[in-house]
Amino acid sequence: MDNLPIEWLGDRVRIIDQTRLPGDEVYLELDNYREVASAIMELKIRGAPAIGIAGAYAVALGASKIEPAARDEFLEKLQGVIDAIAATRPTARNLFFALERMKKVADSGENVMYIKKTLVDEASKIHKEEADATERISEFGAELIKDGWTVLTHCNTGPLAASGYGTALGVIITAHKQGKNVKVLADETRPLLQGARLTTWELQKAGVPVTLITDNMAGHFMRTGKVNCVITGADRIVANGDAANKIGTYTLAVLAKENNIPFYIAAPTSTIDPSLKTGEEIPIEERSAEEVTHIQGVPVAPEGVAAANPAFDVTPHEYITAIITENGIIKEPYNKGIAGIL
Amino acid sequence: MDNLPIEWLGDRVRIIDQTRLPGDEVYLELDNYREVASAIMELKIRGAPAIGIAGAYAVALGASKIEPAARDEFLEKLQGVIDAIAATRPTARNLFFALERMKKVADSGENVMYIKKTLVDEASKIHKEEADATERISEFGAELIKDGWTVLTHCNTGPLAASGYGTALGVIITAHKQGKNVKVLADETRPLLQGARLTTWELQKAGVPVTLITDNMAGHFMRTGKVNCVITGADRIVANGDAANKIGTYTLAVLAKENNIPFYIAAPTSTIDPSLKTGEEIPIEERSAEEVTHIQGVPVAPEGVAAANPAFDVTPHEYITAIITENGIIKEPYNKGIAGIL
Repeated sequence: MDNLPIEWLGDRVRIIDQTRLPGDEVYLELDNYREVASAIMELKIRGAPAIGIAGAYAVALGASKIEPAARDEFLEKLQGVIDAIAATRPTARNLFFALERMKKVADSGENVMYIKKTLVDEASKIHKEEADATERISEFGAELIKDGWTVLTHCNTGPLAASGYGTALGVIITAHKQGKNVKVLADETRPLLQGARLTTWELQKAGVPVTLITDNMAGHFMRTGKVNCVITGADRIVANGDAANKIGTYTLAVLAKENNIPFYIAAPTSTIDPSLKTGEEIPIEERSAEEVTHIQGVPVAPEGVAAANPAFDVTPHEYITAIITENGIIKEPYNKGIAGIL
Repeated sequence: MDNLPIEWLGDRVRIIDQTRLPGDEVYLELDNYREVASAIMELKIRGAPAIGIAGAYAVALGASKIEPAARDEFLEKLQGVIDAIAATRPTARNLFFALERMKKVADSGENVMYIKKTLVDEASKIHKEEADATERISEFGAELIKDGWTVLTHCNTGPLAASGYGTALGVIITAHKQGKNVKVLADETRPLLQGARLTTWELQKAGVPVTLITDNMAGHFMRTGKVNCVITGADRIVANGDAANKIGTYTLAVLAKENNIPFYIAAPTSTIDPSLKTGEEIPIEERSAEEVTHIQGVPVAPEGVAAANPAFDVTPHEYITAIITENGIIKEPYNKGIAGIL
């Protein structure tokens, strides 16, 4: 795929700055973990799987810059690196999944030189596994999409968000490539407009017909029979199937249920956090009020107005028709399905 | 109230340009009906009751400019004026309510001079009646708002939208004036951001605590117990209680029902159209795609992307807890309540 969200260049990572899309295709080369952490916080790289991949490379970069030291001292410093990366964004499970894998590799290495090398290998492995997972997710999911359907999606879940095929958008693009006549309604996804900026851009490139809508139009199109299914990604799925995803997803799931429309989630198993029992335990990132009061730097509200900005919401599992993973499709009872698929 | 949306100055109307708020308080003086019609189309004046008032004054202005003519010729030309004003915006009933009243007054006048004068009187009467109605709506509605409540609202329904007290926002501000501790969550209301720009501005002036949210956050706050009731205005309410209102209202009503939160509509009886049996018959205005693809002139999507822009949606009556009018509060069965209140 073009426009990979992240590439490893041997001693640095190259990312496409997603905050500048679709207007400008700007690539950034980052050679230390603090820059990668900032890029994650500022959403220059975003999307749960892509954050995991970036976090893994950031650990490898951080490790490479630690001055020669004894193994214990190195591991202590590396923990500081991991903690800093972990502090960037709290909701997506994929980041912690990647950091835990990186830490395990570091802890099992016998000397610093070897650990530094195996951390790079592990990050590349995570990257490849995540990209491969999206291909399988896309193939499993495409089976659910019927010829002639209009699919509604939210936020951005294409290659930019995940590498490889993407998750929810990978499903849609794969159905299109299979020759199915598929149309997309793309929620713009306020406040940061990932749907308007990124999803439409990726679908244009893939040749899939797309119509942009504001988030508050989704219900209208569902009620008037214009939507055949809804499919989104996820940032964290817990043991009972409750799922955190971009703010607005819960609303789509409720609207879908009310209108008897299937609501699917597509996500790699790295998104699943079986340590949490229900969605109420998922930490929800609260971002800056300015993302709401300003749009691309332009104020849209009177000065001094308070604004809330939860970046995610939780969709209880009873609204989810199925969860599509690289290991297969899970349905109710999710507790059993999730335990079985990991 | 300050910042009346519209004032009659004897031979012209003065409006505050709502597209420039809250950044700039710009007043426009319009002395012919075409300018008023353009102002309505461009949302310089908006809000269902305010559109009705503006439409009435536009007819009076149009009549005043018709060259001396015989009564029949005058009435024919006046019909052209009325048709042009009627063509500005199709959904809000209040505009047609006002135009029908103006036409009736014209038809019953015996000579042109007299008709011109009575059209001005009738427009002023409509204006006063609509403003007075909002005071009674606000008082009836405020009884439903309890001390300590957080009220979620959509679009703008304050004095700007209706003159007088406003409708849904009038209810909220009146409850606040009664000494109740009321907080507001204001949906920004994409695409034209009337909530972000106008509702927060009016609530700031009234001293009511308000937090701005994006439209797709409403569900999250309802599910997590942060909302005690939802109240919106309406653009057209039909015989069975189905109501058209700003796009996104249907979604709020579904979310409210799902979370056992009362969903109220506040609107004057001029909004009611008993000639339509169900909401499916309401014409829904489709506005320019550019309102979605651009925000305040700045592009937020790739060039050439299609966008839909229905300005309203229909909320079926079964989602509406009560409709607050100046003649009292209606509940199910709405067919009976609406017939009884007119």
